[in-house]
Parts: sequence; structure tokens; C-alpha cells
Amino acid sequence: MDNCIFCKIVKGEIPCKKVYEDEQVMAFYDVAPAAPVHVLVIPKEHILESARAVTAEHAALIGHIYQVIAKLADELGLEGGYRVVTNAGPDAGQTVLHLHFHLLGGKLGPMA
Amino acid sequence: MDNCIFCKIVKGEIPCKKVYEDEQVMAFYDVAPAAPVHVLVIPKEHILESARAVTAEHAALIGHIYQVIAKLADELGLEGGYRVVTNAGPDAGQTVLHLHFHLLGGKLGPMA
Repeated sequence: MDNCIFCKIVKGEIPCKKVYEDEQVMAFYDVAPAAPVHVLVIPKEHILESARAVTAEHAALIGHIYQVIAKLADELGLEGGYRVVTNAGPDAGQTVLHLHFHLLGGKLGPMA
Repeated sequence: MDNCIFCKIVKGEIPCKKVYEDEQVMAFYDVAPAAPVHVLVIPKEHILESARAVTAEHAALIGHIYQVIAKLADELGLEGGYRVVTNAGPDAGQTVLHLHFHLLGGKLGPMA
């Protein structure tokens, strides 16, 4: 998607502070952190705008993302806990229409 | 798990305001809502304490839960958007050690 900021990050056209990459997904620090640790995990392909469009064919990908997040939480020292958030649509504050999951760590506040 | 409140809800030993149930998952309103709409979606089996323990074998289940959430968001009139949250561990405020996903709808605040 030509105008998608996350697609540009995947292609290296916009820099990021990358923490993980494999064939399917990429993870990098959020530029406007909402918590002491705030990493975004995205599928590299622009397959979905948000979780609203998830179907059975995406199950393996989502399961993989949750495994990557658990691994990153260990590596980032989040023994005390972490939160995984995905926002779908304007009421939830979604700003980039490329499916992404927030990994939030450190002492967290309310979830909404 | 004998002392798990969510297992007791699944068995009908503790009442809930149920919104969905199938072979794998159950969804019911949170008794202490953190948003205008706040539903919990859980696997009926006590397979995991939290997302931290997710492995490849759970991918289909997690994908299914995301599909159920998308369907519920439609049924509950959350056209404007929704947030999916799972908390793992005390820093994130997890209180029940039975994997669960929060479906939050309506105008939402910050996610941490």
C-alpha cells in the first residue's frame, strides 16, 4: 500500500528502531510510547486494515504474532507482565490502517 | 481448575451475563466494566494462565477468538471501533489466571 506508513517501514523507506523481524512479521518501538516499553508488532504484508477483518485463514499468523510477543516480552525483561492491545477503528484510537499489535510493558494504567 | 472463577463460570457454578458460546469459547459481560461495552472472551478449557504461554498449538484457538470478537463487535453495534486487550501478569493488572481477552467498545481512552 503506497501511502501506508507501516508498509514504508517494512520496505525501509521510513526508519524504525527494530527489535525483531522474520519472514512474516516485524517489530519496532512505537515513536510515541504509551508505556515504559511500547513495541509494535505487525504482519509485513498489508493483509488487513484491522482485527475486524480477521478470518480463519489468518489464525496461524495471529498465533505466530502472540508467540513473537511472548518471546519479545522475555527478551525485553517484562517478567512483571505485559499487555497486548489491538485497536480497530476510530473509537479505539486506531490511526494506522495496517493491522498491528501493541506490546506494552512496565507498570501499566487502565486499559481503556 | 477448582479455584478459577472463569472455570466456575463455564461450569455454571457462578452466574454470568453470557453473550456467546460455542464448543471452544465463551463470552460474557465483565462485572466491572472499564468501557461502555466490556465483554470477556475466554477459552472454555483452562489451557493457559495467560498469553505468555502461547505456543504454535494455540494458534487456531487465538484466531478463532479474534473471529468471535469481530462478530460480537458487529452484533453489539461497535461500528465506530473496538479494542482487544489481553493482560499477562501483575504489571498489566491481570487478576484471573485463565487466558482471557477483553473486548472494549464505545469511545475509549488511552490503552495503558
